[in-house]
Amino acid sequence: MDPSEPTEDSKTLSKKAAKKEAAKAEKLKRQQEAAAAKAAADLSLADDPLGANYGDIPITDLQSNSITGRRWTAVGSLEEGFKDRTVLIRGRAQTIRAVSKNMAFVVVRDGRNTVQCVVTASEGVVSQQMVKYVTGINRESFVDVEGVVSVPENPIKGASQQVEVQVRKIYCVNRSLPQLPFNIEDAARSETDFEKAEQDGEQLVRVNQDTRLNNRVLDMRTPTNNAIFRVSSQVKSIFSQFLLSEGFVWIDSPKLIAGSSEGGSAVFKLDYKGQPACLAQSPQLHKQMAICGDFGRVFEIGPVFRAEDSFTHRHLCEFTGLDVEMEIKEHYSEVMDIVDRFFVTLFDTLNEKCKKELDAIRRQYPFEPLKYLPKTLKLTFEEGVQMLKESGVDVDSLGDLSTETERKLGQLVLEKYGTEFYILHRYPLAVRPFYTMPCFDNQAYSNSFDVFIRGEEIISGAQRVHEPELLTTRARACGIDIKTISTYIDSFRYGAPPHGGFGVGLERVVMLFCALNNIRKTSLFPRDPLRLAP
Amino acid sequence: MDPSEPTEDSKTLSKKAAKKEAAKAEKLKRQQEAAAAKAAADLSLADDPLGANYGDIPITDLQSNSITGRRWTAVGSLEEGFKDRTVLIRGRAQTIRAVSKNMAFVVVRDGRNTVQCVVTASEGVVSQQMVKYVTGINRESFVDVEGVVSVPENPIKGASQQVEVQVRKIYCVNRSLPQLPFNIEDAARSETDFEKAEQDGEQLVRVNQDTRLNNRVLDMRTPTNNAIFRVSSQVKSIFSQFLLSEGFVWIDSPKLIAGSSEGGSAVFKLDYKGQPACLAQSPQLHKQMAICGDFGRVFEIGPVFRAEDSFTHRHLCEFTGLDVEMEIKEHYSEVMDIVDRFFVTLFDTLNEKCKKELDAIRRQYPFEPLKYLPKTLKLTFEEGVQMLKESGVDVDSLGDLSTETERKLGQLVLEKYGTEFYILHRYPLAVRPFYTMPCFDNQAYSNSFDVFIRGEEIISGAQRVHEPELLTTRARACGIDIKTISTYIDSFRYGAPPHGGFGVGLERVVMLFCALNNIRKTSLFPRDPLRLAP
Repeated sequence: MDPSEPTEDSKTLSKKAAKKEAAKAEKLKRQQEAAAAKAAADLSLADDPLGANYGDIPITDLQSNSITGRRWTAVGSLEEGFKDRTVLIRGRAQTIRAVSKNMAFVVVRDGRNTVQCVVTASEGVVSQQMVKYVTGINRESFVDVEGVVSVPENPIKGASQQVEVQVRKIYCVNRSLPQLPFNIEDAARSETDFEKAEQDGEQLVRVNQDTRLNNRVLDMRTPTNNAIFRVSSQVKSIFSQFLLSEGFVWIDSPKLIAGSSEGGSAVFKLDYKGQPACLAQSPQLHKQMAICGDFGRVFEIGPVFRAEDSFTHRHLCEFTGLDVEMEIKEHYSEVMDIVDRFFVTLFDTLNEKCKKELDAIRRQYPFEPLKYLPKTLKLTFEEGVQMLKESGVDVDSLGDLSTETERKLGQLVLEKYGTEFYILHRYPLAVRPFYTMPCFDNQAYSNSFDVFIRGEEIISGAQRVHEPELLTTRARACGIDIKTISTYIDSFRYGAPPHGGFGVGLERVVMLFCALNNIRKTSLFPRDPLRLAP
Repeated sequence: MDPSEPTEDSKTLSKKAAKKEAAKAEKLKRQQEAAAAKAAADLSLADDPLGANYGDIPITDLQSNSITGRRWTAVGSLEEGFKDRTVLIRGRAQTIRAVSKNMAFVVVRDGRNTVQCVVTASEGVVSQQMVKYVTGINRESFVDVEGVVSVPENPIKGASQQVEVQVRKIYCVNRSLPQLPFNIEDAARSETDFEKAEQDGEQLVRVNQDTRLNNRVLDMRTPTNNAIFRVSSQVKSIFSQFLLSEGFVWIDSPKLIAGSSEGGSAVFKLDYKGQPACLAQSPQLHKQMAICGDFGRVFEIGPVFRAEDSFTHRHLCEFTGLDVEMEIKEHYSEVMDIVDRFFVTLFDTLNEKCKKELDAIRRQYPFEPLKYLPKTLKLTFEEGVQMLKESGVDVDSLGDLSTETERKLGQLVLEKYGTEFYILHRYPLAVRPFYTMPCFDNQAYSNSFDVFIRGEEIISGAQRVHEPELLTTRARACGIDIKTISTYIDSFRYGAPPHGGFGVGLERVVMLFCALNNIRKTSLFPRDPLRLAP
């Protein structure tokens, strides 16, 4: 657990930290404003013949006035090959450092990449006023920089690119407020940074999670967050392309549902033009209807809504569900086979295609690459219980596993099989939803499975009951009022094939693949019982 | 307009049609039940030594009992090369026709494909009881058929595959109710079928839209609907892959929003753990925040909620939005360039990859392929108005175009430029949302655009106001209370790049590409002011 990210006491801590930060920021703001005022005053004294080479671009010049044909170079592409070439770059002034009246450094950031830009006063080329102008730019402002690429002798530590830009022109495209709720560098520090600073007797600012989330627009700009959501983007791409290549159809089921969803959890209720409605807490019914509608194999990527009062590191009130449903010919292992092949493809591809992103995440939150097998390990629930019992853990053989027990089993599996990714199947029937198909040989168990990454559940899946009579019997046995689910049951009355499927939470997959400690880190705008903004 | 799909009077018509259908279905049900009872009675008389070759599979044998290694052959793959081979297929008994005591035909459908299966009584191979059993299977039931492939001399009209299966074994996997709300064949008929039948003095059953949607699980099974949602699946795939290849990041923005969305339309309101909340009517704010968060270029595929009371052929209360937002360097033409290249790629790919699907749709709802140019035509709003005026249409040069005027302009553009896909840009500022960037040279116009397919709007897009002061001014000018949008405005205070984007309705794209007459045809489970189910 990263101590900078408290889950339990975040509200208390957040207040203290916020006060401290506010005071600090206030001081900084005053300093910056004074500096800017002074710079402006100084500048106004002089009529600079090189004045056209810098300044704020008025908004009236940013309204699509013309197509000039100028080419901007991406910061990330700047390397030695650009030596002596004049380039135009756009990015944020991440840090501005005045060295003297004649020299200043600006680190310009463009997405994930940074380059050091040097402003040196030089007769007829760069004026002292321009150096002053640069030092008055607020951090995080957008700037256009035109300059000549040079290659310094010593490696550059403060930027990702190993070249410098000798600035000839610099314009502010859009100014940030001088006072930031926190600095991007502070939000990007690792535990190692904090330890090192402590050893050096320095005190670094910690940005806690609520402050980050309250100012998500700033928080998103850290290299880690930029990387996390690029990984998340890739997961969806790999998921959809893998399933399409396996003959699945990408559907969209409605999120507005009459009455309440078929499951048991709390739902968000609303009024739909005078009719009672709720937000779908899973696409369960509709994806099964698509199977009864002869699509054979379907998947969906969409929001899932849970009105539960969970304040854990792994629950959200809204998350992105990756859902799959498919006809099965004989056995729910056909569904597990899709799980196996999809995840192995996913992990392989992420490790290969997202190296840069994973490295960025690792720099702030170090983690070991996920250990997984080329062919996913499948254990039965009974085998899992046996392993736990043998290691001295007291478990109910027909009950559900607690989060803690799941973690323990994860450890045991890792020790015995060398994998942190595995499938546990044949769960006790009693702990699964009523629409789960019971095992043919033992009614105490079901044709269901959970999938785990690093000891935490990311998937629930199962063969479903496709036969209306058995479905009715099972619902009654679970104490469900048949009237409330008649639409669901009726869907299977005009011929239904045996089928099964599973649902994955996108945020959990990314969180656990990268061994992050909180699901709020992998949701762009997390929603929990207290958080509905931004 | 397809007369079988009335938009205005569907409620009235639907009641009448429903009554008629119900009476018909009731009669059919009685006939079927009588036949089944007779068949069962006859069968019980005989102890058939070949009885193991047919029968209903009990549910207890469909609970993942074993993995046998048997291979099912997809109906769509059956062709002459399979001659004399024994195959096992699973599908629905689409039609069952008894020829005599010794012979019956079953057309088996597996998704979109059908094959004729022949059951012929033959000493020691197929019993008369088996023929009887087959004639007692309800339509739409799932069956497993084992048989030998044969190639008949004459082409087969009633099935997609040009081979037959000489049935050796047949088992019912799951029975449909004998009475269907409508027949799949009836739901799949084209206007030409109806005209032909009328000429022949026959009366075919028309299945109206409400009946279809009330029984979507059946309706989905028509070849047309199967094709429509495969096209829809492809559109999402092409959209995501095109944008990923252009450096866009696939994000997910929250659908649960504090207060009410930034736009003007009616929203669905709900209680979020004691806080007032609403469903996002567009990802506008959050995709712009992602741009301020330095993702550079983002897109999203997700539900959009509109609580409007629109009963037109082109509005839904919930639809799938394809949303794009991106930094722009100089001009909103950079956004239009993405629109141009994406749609040309989309149309090219659909025409190439979805030939089979488009043909299936065309068989029921004939349409001409969309006419589009390799480089999309761009016209200014003023040019559009000019064209309309020249053709005698009275239009307000600074007002919005009515649906009717848009259609008229579509015709004029088609005649003059030979395209049914074009971009109309520089809309009057007064008819666009407050966050639209005004034109630099004329404040009466804006840096915005709409995109049209076959005379109907599918996209709205624009450069956004990225500067907080101008945004505030524009909001005030539009009569918006600044307090209600302070979060939105504040998002731009820590440095925001010039940016723009657009939103597309998936259902509209598919509807208009295929020239369908109602958006309910391209939404799997449409939601309109009256429809919240299934």
